[in-house]
Amino acid sequence: MAVNAAERDAMVRALHLAARGPRGANPQVGAVILSPEGRVLAEGWHQGAGTPHAEVDALSKLDPLEARGATAVVTLEPCNHTGRTGPCAVALIEAGIARVVYALDDPGAVSGGGADRLRASGVDVESGEQAEAAHAVIDGWLTAQRLGRPHVTVKWAQSLDGRAAADDGSSMWITGPEARADVHRRRAEADAIAVGTGTVLADDPSLTARDGDALLPHQPIPVVIGARVTPDDAAVRRHPHTPLFFDTHDLHAILADLHSRGVQSLFVEGGPTLASAFLAAGFADRILAYVAPVLLGGRRLALTDIGVGSLTEARRLTIDEWVPLGGDLLAIAHPVEETDPQHEGAA
Amino acid sequence: MAVNAAERDAMVRALHLAARGPRGANPQVGAVILSPEGRVLAEGWHQGAGTPHAEVDALSKLDPLEARGATAVVTLEPCNHTGRTGPCAVALIEAGIARVVYALDDPGAVSGGGADRLRASGVDVESGEQAEAAHAVIDGWLTAQRLGRPHVTVKWAQSLDGRAAADDGSSMWITGPEARADVHRRRAEADAIAVGTGTVLADDPSLTARDGDALLPHQPIPVVIGARVTPDDAAVRRHPHTPLFFDTHDLHAILADLHSRGVQSLFVEGGPTLASAFLAAGFADRILAYVAPVLLGGRRLALTDIGVGSLTEARRLTIDEWVPLGGDLLAIAHPVEETDPQHEGAA
Repeated sequence: MAVNAAERDAMVRALHLAARGPRGANPQVGAVILSPEGRVLAEGWHQGAGTPHAEVDALSKLDPLEARGATAVVTLEPCNHTGRTGPCAVALIEAGIARVVYALDDPGAVSGGGADRLRASGVDVESGEQAEAAHAVIDGWLTAQRLGRPHVTVKWAQSLDGRAAADDGSSMWITGPEARADVHRRRAEADAIAVGTGTVLADDPSLTARDGDALLPHQPIPVVIGARVTPDDAAVRRHPHTPLFFDTHDLHAILADLHSRGVQSLFVEGGPTLASAFLAAGFADRILAYVAPVLLGGRRLALTDIGVGSLTEARRLTIDEWVPLGGDLLAIAHPVEETDPQHEGAA
Repeated sequence: MAVNAAERDAMVRALHLAARGPRGANPQVGAVILSPEGRVLAEGWHQGAGTPHAEVDALSKLDPLEARGATAVVTLEPCNHTGRTGPCAVALIEAGIARVVYALDDPGAVSGGGADRLRASGVDVESGEQAEAAHAVIDGWLTAQRLGRPHVTVKWAQSLDGRAAADDGSSMWITGPEARADVHRRRAEADAIAVGTGTVLADDPSLTARDGDALLPHQPIPVVIGARVTPDDAAVRRHPHTPLFFDTHDLHAILADLHSRGVQSLFVEGGPTLASAFLAAGFADRILAYVAPVLLGGRRLALTDIGVGSLTEARRLTIDEWVPLGGDLLAIAHPVEETDPQHEGAA
């Protein structure tokens, strides 16, 4: 049985509802309950870890018998897993839902299988409706699920010859205003932004995402990594979000901690030591290198040691795009997969 | 009196004749002597320093009285200077030439002024005929005249993060085949190609310009700079041209020597020490940076110290073109002139 017009409309609505929920450790999900005639009976959405899932939220707005024979339209496959809440599949079955239309399969090894459970109980199930739009809503969450950690962007600015600053440390500004504005826009797309304590002490960055002097609507959570103490009057302490401090260089542990907090994407802002550590550890899903048309020479390198001893160990990149920004050039890249046949034998 | 059709045709011919001469310390010049009716009486071209100038070469093919009342069509203003040969302006006057049509003014402070001398003796003079084409024929010579030294291209290949090699020294190959072929084509456009002795000892380069294994028609003269001795069995000693060895780091003296030998353009091939020395000294008219999509980190920098201590001293570049070459990117650039208003305040 194909998806009907009322169900299609309900999915559009459910996707809007999903987006009301917060980005975090759980996916954003929306649900609409329809009567057999296609009338909207209830709406729900997930409001974050520890609160009811979208389907349960919607069902909670109905009288006990009102959902019998109804259709649930949900943006993600109902879960089959008892976490802080019970399995949604069971809740739907117990409420007497006759049909479920959902967009995306649940990728979770633990939470998946809801559709099978529903079908086993005689519920009619349709999947894939508006899947692309549903994917876009929770793209960051899906990526973090796939990686098992936040998606990491490592960003740096450099002279053409790979320096972050002149020998005396002066680096304001190597790149021009267009490149700096681009950095702020991309900061605003991340859940968190990381710097090393060296950068905090040297540059005292605010780690806010700004348009000129104005704060952009979304601000990434500031993350400070390293053993040295951040001064009480550091600008990062005046950030709209309380900073997270990690007194460790164990990036694996840091990423696991951020993942558990619902951080889906991390923007590694610098400096050279931290950027190089993420590259050396293989935790760089995306690279943003802002290249200024200037030569500096000297010792202030944008990257230090990234664990490459020989050319066969070189970190080969796929350049997704070279973006001209004023006089500067942004390289958007990602590491070449080991098995990419295009690069076999290139080293 | 305007230039007539026979004179225009003669200038086309004279430009072809000019190109027969060798590139060198003197410009390539061609000349055609026309009878008053527009018939070609004689042709000549300059065959290099110490040999007759084009006008004199053409006149030498005529009987003593044959040039009386004739027109000389020349690609460059006849010289007014006694060097290894006498002034051409005087030779033309003494031969009884009634009219001179030339393309380009002589830019030389010493050799210029021939047109004035001709006019003062009653010769009819027209200048500027096909000047653009004439400029193209001796572009390299004009540039070297303007600079007072050879035009210098500094070339290097680097990883995105500015390394020339991995920490163990392995560098074959950072860039791909398209970039390497481009380097060979550009080598073949230069009169000479320079490396430091460090590169000779480390890489034993042949310094030839090749298409695959085949030598390209024009080969630059190899120039080896530095105090260390080039081994007897070094590849550079098998170059089609005998190498020039400079046991000095005085780039000013080296360029003056090359200029006196008629080298109009020098391609600085590397390594990092030599490239950085040319940049530090301000002797880099054009920069070719071949950037490979790879990260290396570590200590093997494509440029070392270029004399920049603070960002205000940064060597700002104008990027003439970013050229994609396979997976690599070539930055063709030149140093920003100090007075360029576009860059005021950028540092």
